[in-house]
Amino acid sequence: MRALLFDGSTVKFRQFHAEPAWAAASEEALIQVHLAGLCQTDLEIAKGYMGFKGVLGHEFVGTVLKASGAVGSGLVGKRVVGEINCVCGKCDMCARGLSTHCRHRTVLGIQNRDGVFADLALLPIRNLHVVPDNVSNEEAVFTEPLAAAVQILRQVQVDARTRVMILGDGRLGQLVARVIALRKCPLVLVGRHEGKLTLADRAGIRTAQDREVEGRHDQDLVIDCTGRAAGFRRALELVRPRGTIVLKTTVADSAADKTTNLAAVVIDEITILGSRCGPFREALAMLGQKQVDVTPLISRRVKIDGGESLFAGPLGADTLKVLLTFDR
Amino acid sequence: MRALLFDGSTVKFRQFHAEPAWAAASEEALIQVHLAGLCQTDLEIAKGYMGFKGVLGHEFVGTVLKASGAVGSGLVGKRVVGEINCVCGKCDMCARGLSTHCRHRTVLGIQNRDGVFADLALLPIRNLHVVPDNVSNEEAVFTEPLAAAVQILRQVQVDARTRVMILGDGRLGQLVARVIALRKCPLVLVGRHEGKLTLADRAGIRTAQDREVEGRHDQDLVIDCTGRAAGFRRALELVRPRGTIVLKTTVADSAADKTTNLAAVVIDEITILGSRCGPFREALAMLGQKQVDVTPLISRRVKIDGGESLFAGPLGADTLKVLLTFDR
Repeated sequence: MRALLFDGSTVKFRQFHAEPAWAAASEEALIQVHLAGLCQTDLEIAKGYMGFKGVLGHEFVGTVLKASGAVGSGLVGKRVVGEINCVCGKCDMCARGLSTHCRHRTVLGIQNRDGVFADLALLPIRNLHVVPDNVSNEEAVFTEPLAAAVQILRQVQVDARTRVMILGDGRLGQLVARVIALRKCPLVLVGRHEGKLTLADRAGIRTAQDREVEGRHDQDLVIDCTGRAAGFRRALELVRPRGTIVLKTTVADSAADKTTNLAAVVIDEITILGSRCGPFREALAMLGQKQVDVTPLISRRVKIDGGESLFAGPLGADTLKVLLTFDR
Repeated sequence: MRALLFDGSTVKFRQFHAEPAWAAASEEALIQVHLAGLCQTDLEIAKGYMGFKGVLGHEFVGTVLKASGAVGSGLVGKRVVGEINCVCGKCDMCARGLSTHCRHRTVLGIQNRDGVFADLALLPIRNLHVVPDNVSNEEAVFTEPLAAAVQILRQVQVDARTRVMILGDGRLGQLVARVIALRKCPLVLVGRHEGKLTLADRAGIRTAQDREVEGRHDQDLVIDCTGRAAGFRRALELVRPRGTIVLKTTVADSAADKTTNLAAVVIDEITILGSRCGPFREALAMLGQKQVDVTPLISRRVKIDGGESLFAGPLGADTLKVLLTFDR
C-alpha cells in the first residue's frame, strides 16, 4: 500500500506491505481510495498544526472493499465518500447530538487516525455516504469541503438582501462563494490572485482585489476563508455593527493576532461564528442536482508516488484544488 | 462648574465659570448630576482607550434643569438617567434601527461628548428616561451598567438548564451575575477576589476562585467581564463545543491576545457575541420591581473635588462601584 506519511517533521512517500488492519467486528469499512483532495488543513498539519502524525488526507472518494453487518455488507462494492469525525457515541457531546464534537473522537488524517492519502483507508461504516451514479469521482471528492461551505447556511440566515463578502479566493473561498451565490444575494469574493478571481468571475461571482476594498464596516456577513490569521482582522474592518463574521480558517500560526484587539467586537457588537464540518447529505444532493460546478476548481492531478513534492514548497499562486490519483 | 477632565494624559479636577452651552433649539437637555458611577471604561479611557479627551463619565442620575419642546419641557425638574449614544437619526445604521451604532454618534464621556463627572451635563432629550419614584438615586445610577447586563439576555437564550460561567467578579460581572441568576440556571461567578466573591455568595450566587476552575470545555455560555484581554482565552477553555462566549470586556490592551489562536473557535464551532449597551427601560423596570439589589455593590463615595485620586492608582482589590458625589 502506497501512502503519504507525516512523521512529525516531513511528509514522506512510503510503500507498505501490509494493509490497514480491518476486523469484521470493528464496524469499520476498508476502502480503496480513487481520488483524494489536498486541503489547506493538510498543509497546516505538515507545519505542525494539531500535532498529528500518520497518513495525511481527509477528502476522498473510494469504493468499499470490506465491511460487515447488515449495513456494511450492503456497501461493499459501492462508491462512497465519508465524514471525517469518528465518534464514540457515548460521551456528553454525543449524547447531546453534538457528535462531531465527541470528546473521544478521532479525525480522518487529522487526529489519531490515518487518512486517505493512501491506497486503502479505514472509516466507520456509519460515516459513509453512497455517491449517486450521476456524480463523478472528480465531483464527489469535493463533498467534504462543499459540506463545510454548506454549513455556513445552517449557521447564518442569508437571503437575497444579505450583503456578503468572502475573504480568500482559494479552494474553500471558491466553494463558499458558489454555495452562497445560490441565495442570489449581493456577494463579493475578495482575493489577491488574478487567476483565481477570474475563475470565480466566470462562474458569475462578483470579485474584487483585496487591495481595492477599503475598510467599510457595511457588510452584513463576512466569511473568512483566507487561511491566514490576519483574515479575522480584515473581516473586522468590513463587517457592519451587529454584523456577523464566519471564521473558516484554521491556522497553526497565531502571530498575526498580535494586534487584534477584541474591543472592536464588543463596541460593534459583532457576532463571530466558528464553522467547521458540514452536512454530507446536502452537499452530495447539491452535486447530484448540478447546483454547484466544482470541477473547474481542479488545478492539478498528482500521482500518490509524487505527492511528497506538494509539501516541499508553495503550490503556486493560481493553484486551487490538487487531486491525488492512484493510477491502478 | 466642577468637573473631572481627561486631557489626553492625566485626569484633572477643574473648576469652570461657564456652564455647558445649552441652546433651546438643540433638542438637548441640561442636567444637574446627583450621582455618577465610575466604570472600567472610564479607567481604560484614562489609559488612552478610544483616544478621548474631555469630561469623563457616562453613568449618572440627575435632574433636568433646562429642556424645551413638548417633551423637553415636561422633563424639567424630573429625575432622569440617560442613554449614552447620541445619534444622527439619518445614517444607514440609524435607518436600519441600529442607531446605537450610528455612524456619526457621539458617546457620553467616551467619544466626542463631555461626560457626567461634572455638576452639569448635556444629553439629547430623547436619550432620557424618567426614574420611577421608588428607585433611589443610589439605585438609578446603576441603570446604564444594569442595562448592559440585561442586553446579554436579548442576545442569548438562557433557561433553567443553561450552564453559565461569568468571568470577573468586578462591577460588571457582579451585575451580570445578578441578572443571569434571575433565570434560575446553573451559574458560577468566577473571580480572584475573596471579598467580591463573598458579596456575590451573599446574594445567593454560586462562586469559584479562578485558580480552582480547570479548563473543562463544558459550559453552554461563558460571559467575559474580566476587563482583561486574557479573559477571552480563559473563556475558550471553559466553553463547550458549539457553546457561546459573550464578550463584555473593552480593553485598551491587546497584549494578552498574542497567544490567542482563533483556530479553537473554528474547531469547536464557538459563537462569540460582542455585547455593549442595553435597554434602559428594562433595567429601570428591574430596579423598580426590586428584582436586583444593586446597592450592596457600592464600595465608596468620593466627592467630585477629590475624584482625581481615583485615576492615580489601583482602586483596591475589593472595591466595586465607586460613586462620585456633589454635596451641594
